[in-house]
Amino acid sequence: MTAVGIDAMEIWTGKLKLDLAETFAPAQGDDPGKYTKGLGLRASSFPDVYEDIVTMGANAAHRLMERKGLTPEDIGRIDVATESAFDNSKPVSTYIAGCLEQVYDENFHHANKGERKFACISGTQSLDDAYNWIRAGRNRGRAALVIATDTALYARDDPGEATQGAGAVAMLVDEDPNLVELSTEQGYGSADETDFLKPNQQFPSVDGKRSVNVYLARMREALEDFAEVAGDIHPGDYEMIPFHTPFPGMVRKAAALGYRHIVRGTDVGDLLAEEIGHQPMRSDFETDDEFHAAIKEYTDALTETERYQDWYANTIEPTLEISREVGNWYTGSVHIARASGLKHARESELDLDEAKLLVASYGSGAQAEVHAETVVPGWEEEIGALDIDEQIQNRHELTFAEYEQVHNVHNHDTEADVEEFTAPEKEFAFDGWGRMGERKYRYVE
Amino acid sequence: MTAVGIDAMEIWTGKLKLDLAETFAPAQGDDPGKYTKGLGLRASSFPDVYEDIVTMGANAAHRLMERKGLTPEDIGRIDVATESAFDNSKPVSTYIAGCLEQVYDENFHHANKGERKFACISGTQSLDDAYNWIRAGRNRGRAALVIATDTALYARDDPGEATQGAGAVAMLVDEDPNLVELSTEQGYGSADETDFLKPNQQFPSVDGKRSVNVYLARMREALEDFAEVAGDIHPGDYEMIPFHTPFPGMVRKAAALGYRHIVRGTDVGDLLAEEIGHQPMRSDFETDDEFHAAIKEYTDALTETERYQDWYANTIEPTLEISREVGNWYTGSVHIARASGLKHARESELDLDEAKLLVASYGSGAQAEVHAETVVPGWEEEIGALDIDEQIQNRHELTFAEYEQVHNVHNHDTEADVEEFTAPEKEFAFDGWGRMGERKYRYVE
Repeated sequence: MTAVGIDAMEIWTGKLKLDLAETFAPAQGDDPGKYTKGLGLRASSFPDVYEDIVTMGANAAHRLMERKGLTPEDIGRIDVATESAFDNSKPVSTYIAGCLEQVYDENFHHANKGERKFACISGTQSLDDAYNWIRAGRNRGRAALVIATDTALYARDDPGEATQGAGAVAMLVDEDPNLVELSTEQGYGSADETDFLKPNQQFPSVDGKRSVNVYLARMREALEDFAEVAGDIHPGDYEMIPFHTPFPGMVRKAAALGYRHIVRGTDVGDLLAEEIGHQPMRSDFETDDEFHAAIKEYTDALTETERYQDWYANTIEPTLEISREVGNWYTGSVHIARASGLKHARESELDLDEAKLLVASYGSGAQAEVHAETVVPGWEEEIGALDIDEQIQNRHELTFAEYEQVHNVHNHDTEADVEEFTAPEKEFAFDGWGRMGERKYRYVE
Repeated sequence: MTAVGIDAMEIWTGKLKLDLAETFAPAQGDDPGKYTKGLGLRASSFPDVYEDIVTMGANAAHRLMERKGLTPEDIGRIDVATESAFDNSKPVSTYIAGCLEQVYDENFHHANKGERKFACISGTQSLDDAYNWIRAGRNRGRAALVIATDTALYARDDPGEATQGAGAVAMLVDEDPNLVELSTEQGYGSADETDFLKPNQQFPSVDGKRSVNVYLARMREALEDFAEVAGDIHPGDYEMIPFHTPFPGMVRKAAALGYRHIVRGTDVGDLLAEEIGHQPMRSDFETDDEFHAAIKEYTDALTETERYQDWYANTIEPTLEISREVGNWYTGSVHIARASGLKHARESELDLDEAKLLVASYGSGAQAEVHAETVVPGWEEEIGALDIDEQIQNRHELTFAEYEQVHNVHNHDTEADVEEFTAPEKEFAFDGWGRMGERKYRYVE
């Protein structure tokens, strides 16, 4: 069976930066540690006034096509995943294709364009669609362009405000990929949950505590479902585990739950039992509360062990490095986590050829999906081509007053006439409104 | 290769009816023929006050599962296609799964749930996703539930108001289907168009004339692309051609364009040339205007021929019967057209075993997709199980004043306290709002 997976990727961050410790915390009257330690975030990315989900997605895709020497005729589908759409009918992929057609002689008229919505998980769902399309023999030798793009804004003073972020990830899905091969096997954990939603509104209504619990519950189900189809998981099987990262603190919890799950019945589980006792089992407790208290106590002990901390430092921590600097990108976040882990591995000169990743995606509402990926020899070159460090470094740093203006610019319900903070160059930029209320774009030389 | 396609389907119409000739035309001061002859529509369906895209989709899916003896564990994915979503993050499929879980002991926790948006074409895109998922070997023996559900409302007094409609189509996609097998081959015609869009608004902004032209242009491209991969098309190849049907008058234009295209270079084309001359070619004219005038003249002559009228009466006309009574269902419309054609064939006792359909889907913004389907022996039983005639017959007929109330009920920007016109029975119904602004549902015994 021919390998199908991610051949190459590009990341495009919004060009503005809000420093959480230096700028946001003092303005909110908060201890900076609430953000840097509690959430695990240093800064958020925001789009400049000429940026939005279309420009970020088109710029990431354009750079990807240029680097891989592709023209529109090499692309058989363009799938966009977002929960920041500004139209209830016309998909973002048509706008992005329209941008790209400004800079290529060929067009995308025979490419299937789509848009998926399911909170933060639709980026992975679109990746899966592209994989399935190729496996179904419908691609006619062409690749798929999968773009996860979001501007994750909360209402001002919402508890989620510090987790904001904006950026796009473009992925080229093809046969014989140069980055990672996807597994056929998938595990799902999915339920009708009211934890985070946007009923006819741009900014989310969030039940923060419930949202954390739902993330963990659905992820546990997805892990169980994955093991059902792919066989038992051993903690040594996977070199890294990129999780959806709304903020690194969430992944701290998810990683501990995942580890508890995958060590059961393994030699690692036996060694841990000698050290801190067996994992609590529901049948040993009279009430749910007693059981949950025991789980919490066990997890605290587990995360203090050297064995767990070594595993976390190697398997999880490297996947969080980019997220700490840019915040939550919704649909792009788990793909940022994969890139972050591989980038760390390359910089540490780790040999990941043929190594396995377990990719753990999640979307509120709610659904988790787990699949495996195999790192393909040659991955270092693909990852080495990313310039995300320079992009992060070059962002314009906002004052708090500027942040307030930028929030208004991207709020669909407010009008704000704000000068751009950076100058677009060799990229797509918002160019005003058309006669039917559509957003227009131009390529800035 | 195992056949993959639609195993069974169910249709659920909104329970209210607006008669266009008797009720709408007089209130608008219009000649009834504007609607019945120009658009080709007799009536529109609307949801009762306790109905919406979730209840209609869940009711169609529930009936489908009951009739096929399925439980949630038989279903591996639930894909919803809609352009009437009321949440910018949480997908309609989670709400529908939540409804169904009220009436089954099992749950859908290991089913992948999704939502696709691309005007009217995302129903077919979701069908394709389900096909690809099975072909990719990821379904683990389970089927996909594909639901196209929309409430197609326009602003009051918009030229599109007479084409409104509301309803849902649920389709079971599986191996060894009992209704139609889908072709691997697909043709696409797709461009970034500003013909119909909903920029941060519920009701569409429409450029009606442009929308018709874009439909035709993208459909021509899709037919050419399909022929590129599936080989030349002969008008005798396809027993019926279900088109996306925003209103039957649009399909009248699309059918003539399609026929002109598929007879070229065939014996039928030669016979027609003897009768009405050759099709105009751009190279024979100095200006676009002259060429278009000649095309129009040729098309008028073509559609007057007995040959064309016979073809139209057999291949197209039967696909429009349901649409005339219910209006535009957006994502569901092309699937209504397929059902309508097969239902007509069954009632006419036609033998369609192994017959081919050419299915021509379209969404504004804009994209057309063409694929072939093979009717599977046993199709009559599946189609015979549909009760859409009874549903259409049993709708409550609205006065114009009642119509105005119902429009307000389903307008997201207005509040209207209106009594229900019909009584829900053995179905899902809207049950008010939850604490986070979510819509809630109950099963009415």
